[in-house]
Amino acid sequence: MKLVVMKFGGTSVGDLDKIANVANIINHEVKKNKLIVVLSAMAGETNKLQNYLDIIKSDNQIENDLVLTSGENVTIGLLSILLKKKRIKSIPLLGWQIPIITDNSHQKAKILNIDTNRIKKYLRKYDVLVIAGFQGISTKGNITSLGRGGSDTSAVALASALNAKRCDIYTDVDGVFTTDPNIEPRAKKINKLTFEEMLEMSSTGAKVLHTRSVELAMKNSLVIQVLSSLKNKKGTLIVDEKKLIEKEIVSGVSYSINESKVTISGIPDKPGISAKIFGLLAEKNINVDMIVQNISQDGISANITFTVPNSEVDKAQIVLKNNEKKIKFKSLNTDENVSKISVIGMGMMSQSGVAQKMFKTLADNSINILAISTSEIKISVLINKKFTNIAVKSLHKAYNLNSKKR
Amino acid sequence: MKLVVMKFGGTSVGDLDKIANVANIINHEVKKNKLIVVLSAMAGETNKLQNYLDIIKSDNQIENDLVLTSGENVTIGLLSILLKKKRIKSIPLLGWQIPIITDNSHQKAKILNIDTNRIKKYLRKYDVLVIAGFQGISTKGNITSLGRGGSDTSAVALASALNAKRCDIYTDVDGVFTTDPNIEPRAKKINKLTFEEMLEMSSTGAKVLHTRSVELAMKNSLVIQVLSSLKNKKGTLIVDEKKLIEKEIVSGVSYSINESKVTISGIPDKPGISAKIFGLLAEKNINVDMIVQNISQDGISANITFTVPNSEVDKAQIVLKNNEKKIKFKSLNTDENVSKISVIGMGMMSQSGVAQKMFKTLADNSINILAISTSEIKISVLINKKFTNIAVKSLHKAYNLNSKKR
Repeated sequence: MKLVVMKFGGTSVGDLDKIANVANIINHEVKKNKLIVVLSAMAGETNKLQNYLDIIKSDNQIENDLVLTSGENVTIGLLSILLKKKRIKSIPLLGWQIPIITDNSHQKAKILNIDTNRIKKYLRKYDVLVIAGFQGISTKGNITSLGRGGSDTSAVALASALNAKRCDIYTDVDGVFTTDPNIEPRAKKINKLTFEEMLEMSSTGAKVLHTRSVELAMKNSLVIQVLSSLKNKKGTLIVDEKKLIEKEIVSGVSYSINESKVTISGIPDKPGISAKIFGLLAEKNINVDMIVQNISQDGISANITFTVPNSEVDKAQIVLKNNEKKIKFKSLNTDENVSKISVIGMGMMSQSGVAQKMFKTLADNSINILAISTSEIKISVLINKKFTNIAVKSLHKAYNLNSKKR
Repeated sequence: MKLVVMKFGGTSVGDLDKIANVANIINHEVKKNKLIVVLSAMAGETNKLQNYLDIIKSDNQIENDLVLTSGENVTIGLLSILLKKKRIKSIPLLGWQIPIITDNSHQKAKILNIDTNRIKKYLRKYDVLVIAGFQGISTKGNITSLGRGGSDTSAVALASALNAKRCDIYTDVDGVFTTDPNIEPRAKKINKLTFEEMLEMSSTGAKVLHTRSVELAMKNSLVIQVLSSLKNKKGTLIVDEKKLIEKEIVSGVSYSINESKVTISGIPDKPGISAKIFGLLAEKNINVDMIVQNISQDGISANITFTVPNSEVDKAQIVLKNNEKKIKFKSLNTDENVSKISVIGMGMMSQSGVAQKMFKTLADNSINILAISTSEIKISVLINKKFTNIAVKSLHKAYNLNSKKR
C-alpha cells in the first residue's frame, strides 16, 4: 500500500463539524492508501495565542514557541477520536513524539531530521498517523515552530522523507488562482503550475502555500496538490517543470502590501557603499527585496531605494541611523504606503515583450513605477498602494487571464 | 537556598493581568527561595476542551489527555515570559520534558516517578521552574492527565519528591472555610486543619483541593497552605495531626450533591448477596459510598440502598439489570435528588454526642435521614436535596462554627 500525505489548514479544522468533514475525506482515502495527516490549529487559535505574546511584547524564543504550538494538540486529538469512531486505526502524534528534529531557530525553525524508522513502525500498526503540523523539537529539547503557515512545510517534509506518492494540501480555496479573487472575480483556478511559478507566487504575496514547503517539494520533486476540503473536486497540481509541456507565458498576477519602501538620499557616490549598507542590514537578518540605485541630480551623491517587510522597517531604520556616520547619508525616509505587483510565468523565459506589456499597461492606467525587480520567470514592480486593485485587474486582463482556461 | 513549591489554579491565571499578578507574587518570593511554580490552564480553557470531547462522545484515552492538557502550554509559557521581563531566571517545562512519569490510567493517571536529578540540574541554572500541572507522560510515551484538579497533585508530588520547605496552593478563595460561604455567609476561614480533616472535607464535597494531593501530602508530612492569589494574607495551613495541639470537635460542614441513591428491593436475605452486588459494581470501577441494608417487612427479603457518583449511576443500573437473575431482586430504583451532608473534626474521636447532635439538629428541622455513614472523624448523612441549605446552616450553627475563631 502506498503512502499519501494530506494536510488540512486551520479553516479546514475550524470547528467540530469541519473536523468531522475531514474525517469523512480521510475515510474515503484510507481505503486506497496509508495516510499521514498533518493538521494546523483551529482557525483563529494561533492568532489568539500570538495576540497574547504581542500584548506582553514577548521576545522569548522558547516560551513563544511553547505557547504558539499548543493549538495543534487539540485538533490532532479530536480528529483521531473521530477516525476511531469510524473504526479507522489512527494515532495522534506531536512533533517531539516522532520526533521531528529541528535547529534552534525558534519561530522559523528548519527541520534537520525526521525519524522515518519510527514513523514506518507506526505505519505498520496504524492506517492513519495524525501529526501536529507547524512544530518540531530542537536539538536542545525545546519545542520549536516552523513559522506561520509552517504546517505546509511539515507535510512536505514528511512526504519527502517517506517517499509519499502525493502530498495533498487541503485549504478553504479551490486551488491556486490566476490572481486574488477578492480583487478580480474573474480570477481562474490554475490546474497545473511549476514549482518555480508557485515559489514566485508565494514569495510575491499569494498566501496559498508556505514558501519553504514549495522549495522543499521542488528539491525532492514531490508533486503537491492544493485543493478545497469543502468541495470534492480537483485542485491545483504543483509539478516539476519537466512535466509541464505547455508553459504559460504568464500564469498569474500576485500582489503584496506587506513591504515598505526605504530611501536613503545623498550618499557619496563611491564604490562599496551599497555593500556597506546591505551588509549592515544582512547582519541584523533584515530581508531586503527590491533595490534601485540612482545618481542624484548634483552628479556627486547617490540615492538608494529598497524594500523590506513592514515588520522589519523599524529595525532597518535603527540600524541605518546608528551607522549614519559610516554611511554618510543626508536623509532617510520610509514609506509603508506601497504595494508590490508581480506577474509570473514559466513561458516568460522564452518570450520577449512581457515586461514591456506590464509597463505599458500600468502607464495606460497612469500608475507610476517606484522600483522594479525581475527574475527569469517574474517581473515585480513597486507602486503606490492605492493603485493595487486597478493594477491587478488591468494586468490580469492584459495577459488574457480573464478568459483563459488551463 | 531552600525550595518552595507554589501552585496557581485556573482562576489565578485566568487572563494576562492575573498572570502578571502571579509574576509579582513570584518576584517577591524568589528573593527568599528557589521556586517551582505549577500552573493550571486558564480558567474555562479545560472546560472548553472537555466540552469538545463531550460533544463527540469521546472515550479515547490517549486522545482525550492530549486535548485536555494543551491549555497548560499557554500559561507556563506566558508566565515564564513575564518572569524574564522582571529579570528572573526562569524556564517553562512540560510534564514530558522533566519527565513526570505516570502509569497508563489516562484521565486519572498516578505519578510513578519524577526525575529529581534533572530538576535539581535545572534549579542550579534557573531560579524558577514553571511547570505544567495536571500532566505527565506514561510509561508508553503518551501524554497523561491526573484528573480534574490534578495540578494540586502535581505540586504536592514535586514538593514531596524534592523535600520542599512548603507547598503553597494559590486559589481564588482565602483558604478552607468551615462550610461553603455561598450557603452560609457566616462561614469562617480555618487557620489550621489536619490532613485527615482536609481529606474528609475534599471527599465530602469541599472542592478546595484535589483529594489525591492531600493523601500524598499526608504520606510525606508535607505542610500545605491554601491561600488567595489576590489578597496578601495567610490562608489555611494543612498540617500533621501531631502538630495540631488543640483539636476542634467539628472543624467544618461539607455537602455534596453529586451522588445518587440506588435502592435494590426484594433481594433474598441470604449471606453473600451484598458481596455479590458490590463485587459486580467494583468490577466495573463504580465507586460505592454510603450503604444501608435492611430486612423488608416480610422478613424474608432484604433491601439495599447505596450511593454512587451521579456520573456512574447509569453504568450501575446497567450492571445490576444485566445481573438481575444472578441477584434475584424485585425492583431497582435510583434517585438523583439527594444530598450528602458531612460534619468533620479531629476532636470527634475523643468526644461523644457529636452524632447525636447532628441527628437532633436535622430532626428539629424536620429533615429525614436516608442513609448514614461514619468514619473516626466524620459523620455523613444522606438527605433530600431540597434541604441542603437548611441542613448546612443549622449544623454550622449547632456546632458553634458561626462564632468560633480558629
